Amino acid sequence: MKLFTLGPVEMYPDTLKLAGRPLPYFRTDAFSEVVLESSDLLRRFATAPAGSEVLLLTASGTAAMEAAVVNCFDENDKLLVIDGGTFGHRFAEICAYHHIPFESVVLPFGTALTADMLLPYDDAGFTGLLVNIHETSTGQLYDMDAIADFCKRNDLYLVADAIGSFLADETDMIRHGIDVLIVSSQKGLALAPGLSIVVLSERIFERKVRAIRANCMYFDFNDYAVNAKRGQTPFTPAVGVVIAMRERLAAIDEIGVDVCIRNTARMATAFRERLCRPPIKIPSYKLSNAVTPLIFEAGNAKEMYRALIERHGIYLNPNGGQLADKVLRVGHLGNLTLQDHMELADILRDVCGHD
Amino acid sequence: MKLFTLGPVEMYPDTLKLAGRPLPYFRTDAFSEVVLESSDLLRRFATAPAGSEVLLLTASGTAAMEAAVVNCFDENDKLLVIDGGTFGHRFAEICAYHHIPFESVVLPFGTALTADMLLPYDDAGFTGLLVNIHETSTGQLYDMDAIADFCKRNDLYLVADAIGSFLADETDMIRHGIDVLIVSSQKGLALAPGLSIVVLSERIFERKVRAIRANCMYFDFNDYAVNAKRGQTPFTPAVGVVIAMRERLAAIDEIGVDVCIRNTARMATAFRERLCRPPIKIPSYKLSNAVTPLIFEAGNAKEMYRALIERHGIYLNPNGGQLADKVLRVGHLGNLTLQDHMELADILRDVCGHD
Repeated sequence: MKLFTLGPVEMYPDTLKLAGRPLPYFRTDAFSEVVLESSDLLRRFATAPAGSEVLLLTASGTAAMEAAVVNCFDENDKLLVIDGGTFGHRFAEICAYHHIPFESVVLPFGTALTADMLLPYDDAGFTGLLVNIHETSTGQLYDMDAIADFCKRNDLYLVADAIGSFLADETDMIRHGIDVLIVSSQKGLALAPGLSIVVLSERIFERKVRAIRANCMYFDFNDYAVNAKRGQTPFTPAVGVVIAMRERLAAIDEIGVDVCIRNTARMATAFRERLCRPPIKIPSYKLSNAVTPLIFEAGNAKEMYRALIERHGIYLNPNGGQLADKVLRVGHLGNLTLQDHMELADILRDVCGHD
Repeated sequence: MKLFTLGPVEMYPDTLKLAGRPLPYFRTDAFSEVVLESSDLLRRFATAPAGSEVLLLTASGTAAMEAAVVNCFDENDKLLVIDGGTFGHRFAEICAYHHIPFESVVLPFGTALTADMLLPYDDAGFTGLLVNIHETSTGQLYDMDAIADFCKRNDLYLVADAIGSFLADETDMIRHGIDVLIVSSQKGLALAPGLSIVVLSERIFERKVRAIRANCMYFDFNDYAVNAKRGQTPFTPAVGVVIAMRERLAAIDEIGVDVCIRNTARMATAFRERLCRPPIKIPSYKLSNAVTPLIFEAGNAKEMYRALIERHGIYLNPNGGQLADKVLRVGHLGNLTLQDHMELADILRDVCGHD
């Protein structure tokens, strides 16, 4: 069995070895140290500005997205949501759920976001922008320079969901003026699901988080920030995932985060080059290094998904909703090699009957 | 190192073996089956009434407590909270946070809840009662017959946090008319933290959950219930913990849940009998089989906690807040034997210098 899915992904042997060890009690100095060390590495990998808070939530990525919105904004804000797929749309749903005023830039499947599309929203009273750096449902990697430029000239807070891009595409909170960065354990970090990370700039923490009362007590960032100072969380954390994360971050640090990203990029590029011929199409917009969406114009994506599992033990990531019949996604995250990708490309060409 | 803590607890070899295995992708029939089988076992172990919903939340126990409150009640309700320690007080905080009217029955440390204490709240317009079957911060096991009787004669919904009692003390949703039962992975189930379980009676689901819009989207029970029908969750679950839970539930089922509870009771009783002499006191109220609180009248609980770790590699569970200097708790959950408990009792008597 081999996972080219987008979480869980193929995990590294050291992660699995750690996962098989008994868990320690966590209200200890030793565990606090694990949290503090990990937070420092996360800050560095995200190029977080000085004074950033790193908060660990025991919850899925969606919870971190919701927590970010309800801790940073309220009914006095007006948010612009880049809605280019399932996860952008989820930001819109979160705003609607909490009665936070918002407008959406809706991108039909196949459409690239351009700087021009943001022009109509200049000087229109927006206070924040919500974007998935990589819209994981379509693979689109947004032009963060254009988004950062829009936010800067309009003085907006920028919330960037990096769940599908962290450690696969460059993440630079300083360069892009990102105020909230959202990460989840089961993608680029290649850990078990159940832990999410929120990095907050000092600016948004001091000006917004401190002043806003979040709608959910379990997600009250002020409470998490107080505890984070001493390497703890207000409630029982996903202890095992936190411990495995420290090991993984240290391993990445040894290789260098840039090298990790380059390796993923190399695998993604080589895979796309080897694969790409009819009847499998890939989108023309800029893709994240984390994923290659395969477009099955014949609408047989589900059949392909099942055939790959049954014949080869290979799991690609299916799509939901409108793209369920048309798109499968190949993830390039986790413990996968270039060789794995070359083999997959050959299998795909074979399964699609065109070699 | 040995954990007599209350989560994480000592895990079983089979749980650790599973934890060390690669995780599968979860949007599959195979994973749905794991969820559906586990849900059936959980229903049975909780003596849940027919038609009960079993929802799996990727979050800590506090999140499940908050989710239960915000999905079942709103500002038109009036709740009675049994506030006999940290976790009862947490229910009160959750009600206050969400502006849900409530009153508390506050029990100072050492006070047992009696049926008489509930009499002043008869016919007083309450619509629900929130209780921790076992108030884990003090070890008190509440008289659920008295509470059930109060709820029945006043026609209240009963929310019972069984986080500290499930699989250690009898759990009977039917007998006690429990509408919401809350369980967490890292206590009696002896799994990694990060997964919580909510069992809902059909009555509360149809009459309350369907009608109420929860304050948090991530915790919307209606969404979870729709997904649970097909053995799935709306968002990425803690896949590894779910898989380990199925193994653990099956292992418990083989022994028999009654036998499991009796074994825990036997260890707790033997430990208390062997231990109990000055200067270590234990409370006089009825205790859960899950825990024995040790009262250090001299206020040296923290010293004892450190001494046990440094000299013996043994972790007891410290208390927070007002009881931090006075109380340590010995957990009887997870992979511990009678022999472990006898040794701990001897060590405690030795460390306390009274043998």
